[in-house]
Amino acid sequence: MPQTRLDLDRIHAARSVIDPVFLDTPMYRCDALGRRLGCTVSIKLETANPVRSFKGRGTELVASLLAERGRSAVVCASAGNLGQALGWSGGRRGLDVTVVASRRAPAAKLDRIRALGAELELVDGDFEMARERAATIAQRRGIRLLEDSLDIETCEGAATIGLELADKKSTFDTVLIALGGGAMATGVGYVLKTLAPGAEVICVQPMGAPAMTRSWHERRVITTESMDTIADGVAGRYPIPAVLDDLLAVADDAVLVRESSIIAGMRLLLEHAGLVVEPSAALGVAAVLEDPDRFAGRRIVTVICGSNVDLNAYHHWVHG
Amino acid sequence: MPQTRLDLDRIHAARSVIDPVFLDTPMYRCDALGRRLGCTVSIKLETANPVRSFKGRGTELVASLLAERGRSAVVCASAGNLGQALGWSGGRRGLDVTVVASRRAPAAKLDRIRALGAELELVDGDFEMARERAATIAQRRGIRLLEDSLDIETCEGAATIGLELADKKSTFDTVLIALGGGAMATGVGYVLKTLAPGAEVICVQPMGAPAMTRSWHERRVITTESMDTIADGVAGRYPIPAVLDDLLAVADDAVLVRESSIIAGMRLLLEHAGLVVEPSAALGVAAVLEDPDRFAGRRIVTVICGSNVDLNAYHHWVHG
Repeated sequence: MPQTRLDLDRIHAARSVIDPVFLDTPMYRCDALGRRLGCTVSIKLETANPVRSFKGRGTELVASLLAERGRSAVVCASAGNLGQALGWSGGRRGLDVTVVASRRAPAAKLDRIRALGAELELVDGDFEMARERAATIAQRRGIRLLEDSLDIETCEGAATIGLELADKKSTFDTVLIALGGGAMATGVGYVLKTLAPGAEVICVQPMGAPAMTRSWHERRVITTESMDTIADGVAGRYPIPAVLDDLLAVADDAVLVRESSIIAGMRLLLEHAGLVVEPSAALGVAAVLEDPDRFAGRRIVTVICGSNVDLNAYHHWVHG
Repeated sequence: MPQTRLDLDRIHAARSVIDPVFLDTPMYRCDALGRRLGCTVSIKLETANPVRSFKGRGTELVASLLAERGRSAVVCASAGNLGQALGWSGGRRGLDVTVVASRRAPAAKLDRIRALGAELELVDGDFEMARERAATIAQRRGIRLLEDSLDIETCEGAATIGLELADKKSTFDTVLIALGGGAMATGVGYVLKTLAPGAEVICVQPMGAPAMTRSWHERRVITTESMDTIADGVAGRYPIPAVLDDLLAVADDAVLVRESSIIAGMRLLLEHAGLVVEPSAALGVAAVLEDPDRFAGRRIVTVICGSNVDLNAYHHWVHG
């Protein structure tokens, strides 16, 4: 069992706290996509829920803990999906939810955060600016700051995906996981390395936002000055040291992919699986497209982590 | 309990025969769509599986019975989805599967039937011509003819959707079900009238293929000379008397919708739920669009029954 901040008993216990609408998501082979990619492809679909991403698994844990402790408010920075999920989980428990996001985040994500009743504050700047601003708000108001990937509940929530994958470990060789802050990669990776050690865990990040991947390869935190990717959901510049340590313990590899491959991945997921996905959810397919020999004949699972996309942008990418 | 050809014990037993990949499909509230439609909308998603429609539930039953009995071949007529599902279920059990379809069926459906290893025979004419031809093949070769909606396994398979809905009966008032041959409507309707009698069961059919709906209203079989609808999955002209009898016992209403509403429904499902669906799967939303007062403030569930659509046609409908 790898040494990380994660704990299998806590992850099992998390399942009883998370609303079932986020659990036991579909996992199925998509042979049409597999034929195109030259390998056996299974899809783990995390978008068929009220917030259209896997983030509800983590926010359910956070919000229920806060409610238990009588706390009334919470703030987070979000690229868009965490904010929706926290809005959903917090709103149902009577919590005041504040979300700080970049003004450049997809309008669809911002609109849905507002629609969930969360207070939305926009910053001029990227996700890292939003993180700073959220920390300031938390301190000033004396409320809980939820930090994605650093706060263990976000990793534990994502790790419940790993439990579901491990139940079907005989059906795949490799899991491809979108890498952003690292909650999903460390959570899923930890469970697989513990319950399905034969499974290969490969993290995939855009070349345009490579901080965590570079950090993983150099085994120390590498930050970047800027980012340039359409995969807004995984765009960060400052890897969190504790998360990097966990990732070093559970990932077999971390690879970077081009924007053109992400777009090609989105297009293939539409054409062969009928799925409209956000760019981050196409990272796994992009990785196969960039290195087909590596995956030839392998049985892969790709986690389709979100579908919150501006349709105009999507249309431009996929049909443009 | 309504008097039909269906039996609750057999439907419960069916769950243990059907591959789990088709069972316990996502059901979730989609508030973005609900706001647009003026009611509370839940989606029951039947497309996240290897054949992208609910039909696998029924073909799993049929194929496992045939395999048990040592039969080696089966033939069916299909608008496209049943053929794929039978190809999948039969192929995994070593059965020779022959599918007869109209040459006008969507190329995407025909390609996927072939890709599943089924023998595909095309007829010049509509689904009713395919039915005739399939019966001839069955007789000539002495093999099992699978008849959708008439063969009770197809209704029982679809009825397992009803069990899953009934488990959440406190969350909805009305279920909207696409009506074609009637397997899904009678199966789901029977279970709901038995286990959740408070739930309203409304069947929805295109105005361009109204035979079963007209038959339901007149309480006798009405056939039509022709059909004209993009909702290929529900297009039939000759209602089956036994299925009509069952439908009369379990449906609260059957309504017809315009093609323009089906297209608008597909567009709303894309815009507000991120789902690419085939026209038949948009019938429920179309029904709400045509009669918003009837559904205002109600809690509805719409079964998203399939996503096998030609993307070019889809694009033309939704963005054209």
